[in-house]
Amino acid sequence: MKNCRQDEHHSNAKKLIPKLSSTSIELTSAIEVLDEKKRKKSIFIPAERPLTIYLNKKELVTLMTLGSRPEDLVLGYLRNQRIIKKLDDIVSIQVDWDVNSAAVISNTYEAQQTSKRTVTTGCGQGTIFGDIQADLDKLVLSQRSQLTQSTLTEIIDVMRRHDSVYKKAGSVHGCALFKGAEMLMFVEDVGRHNAVDSIAGKMWLESLEGEGLVFYTTGRLTSEMVIKGAQMNIPFLLSRSGVTQMGVQMAKKVNLSLFGRCSGKHFYLYSSWQRFVYD
Amino acid sequence: MKNCRQDEHHSNAKKLIPKLSSTSIELTSAIEVLDEKKRKKSIFIPAERPLTIYLNKKELVTLMTLGSRPEDLVLGYLRNQRIIKKLDDIVSIQVDWDVNSAAVISNTYEAQQTSKRTVTTGCGQGTIFGDIQADLDKLVLSQRSQLTQSTLTEIIDVMRRHDSVYKKAGSVHGCALFKGAEMLMFVEDVGRHNAVDSIAGKMWLESLEGEGLVFYTTGRLTSEMVIKGAQMNIPFLLSRSGVTQMGVQMAKKVNLSLFGRCSGKHFYLYSSWQRFVYD
Repeated sequence: MKNCRQDEHHSNAKKLIPKLSSTSIELTSAIEVLDEKKRKKSIFIPAERPLTIYLNKKELVTLMTLGSRPEDLVLGYLRNQRIIKKLDDIVSIQVDWDVNSAAVISNTYEAQQTSKRTVTTGCGQGTIFGDIQADLDKLVLSQRSQLTQSTLTEIIDVMRRHDSVYKKAGSVHGCALFKGAEMLMFVEDVGRHNAVDSIAGKMWLESLEGEGLVFYTTGRLTSEMVIKGAQMNIPFLLSRSGVTQMGVQMAKKVNLSLFGRCSGKHFYLYSSWQRFVYD
Repeated sequence: MKNCRQDEHHSNAKKLIPKLSSTSIELTSAIEVLDEKKRKKSIFIPAERPLTIYLNKKELVTLMTLGSRPEDLVLGYLRNQRIIKKLDDIVSIQVDWDVNSAAVISNTYEAQQTSKRTVTTGCGQGTIFGDIQADLDKLVLSQRSQLTQSTLTEIIDVMRRHDSVYKKAGSVHGCALFKGAEMLMFVEDVGRHNAVDSIAGKMWLESLEGEGLVFYTTGRLTSEMVIKGAQMNIPFLLSRSGVTQMGVQMAKKVNLSLFGRCSGKHFYLYSSWQRFVYD
């Protein structure tokens, strides 16, 4: 069930990269249910567990998570909440599922501005929106990147065929990062913001810039999803679901190309049409 | 677009009930999109707007909301976050969409424990989970109420036929409260927790107890949805979607009957089977 080790590759790398544990844990479990004909059935449901982040031994936050990529999630959370500004400010992240905790050591962080809170499964992790609204006013994404219709269709198909917790157990949100039609990352979580944050964390770790990349999510494109995408400098956001009015407004403001209702060959393009090439 | 008035019915009632504005605002808007054949189409998308709650002139929180039931939402938020303990501690709630604000006046509330934050659209409004975990240990729902299979099927059908923002524009979550197969309340919002909180607010206002009632949601039944249901003393939670492991654990702990994958005549029953009557 538990498989915890130091990642030697990272600690030996030239660039200063935090020491990360690499934990794994069961993502689904079988339970018995009754159906409409009073039949007992065994079905799979996704895990949901608290992960409490301790930053320099001070309790920071508890995230409700599937637990698939806890180290990336912690990294992405610290980044997106602007608690840690530079990756090499983090010495190590050690996740321990025996006590549902992630111990983060930072040389530079001084605990003063944060207080204990819990972020529930449905949660956008609350505080980010207000803080970055001001920054967003300055942000405009580059128009250089283009996306062709054939690549878009291929991405939708890759997502459809990809093996996932969702296929086995449902009730999770998935996010993926693409370069062309190549899937670079794929993360699922019970909280959709956790999935996005995990990808942000992994991008940070791999010094990966968002320029030219495509972000796919199964969840809706609401204002804060657009903000997170824009923060990561990703010009293309795709969703199987729809959008909200403020999501579209924000996308237009920062020049982000928003695609919703992506299914098979179908989609709607809501903003920044000039980046898209029909073929 | 704006229609703001004092609700005389409430202010004249014998029981001390807060004076509430009764605002309405457009919930959807038409926008132009491009589809896969480069056709321009006009489609509807749901609104998403900030609503900043001021409690005794002090800024409390900003919720991202559809805006369908702002007064109920504010009430339910104050109740579920345990900021205000008794309904008659609230003198008035005045929503003004010109400035996206809700001004709450309370005679008893003393501002000290809260600080400014924003709750985004996907958000579970963060702090509730940890605070009430202790209370939940004491909570066990009564076994008195029963639900029959024919009523369950009827409820699913009522939801299917109900006119909604979702049908017109998608991208929202809906919640409803039922007494038998009679729909007592129906609320949609871009944040699923806002929909639940709005129902909690309206239940508070109408002195409606949860005992014997059925709560339907389009969203997943995760841990905090089960907690909110249990807090409202509602024994039956239904969802079109699935559940998480912790949702089921919590439901078993407090004796709550959880039904997922409700569609047509189909459903799964995950917990507290003894309350359900197959007919």
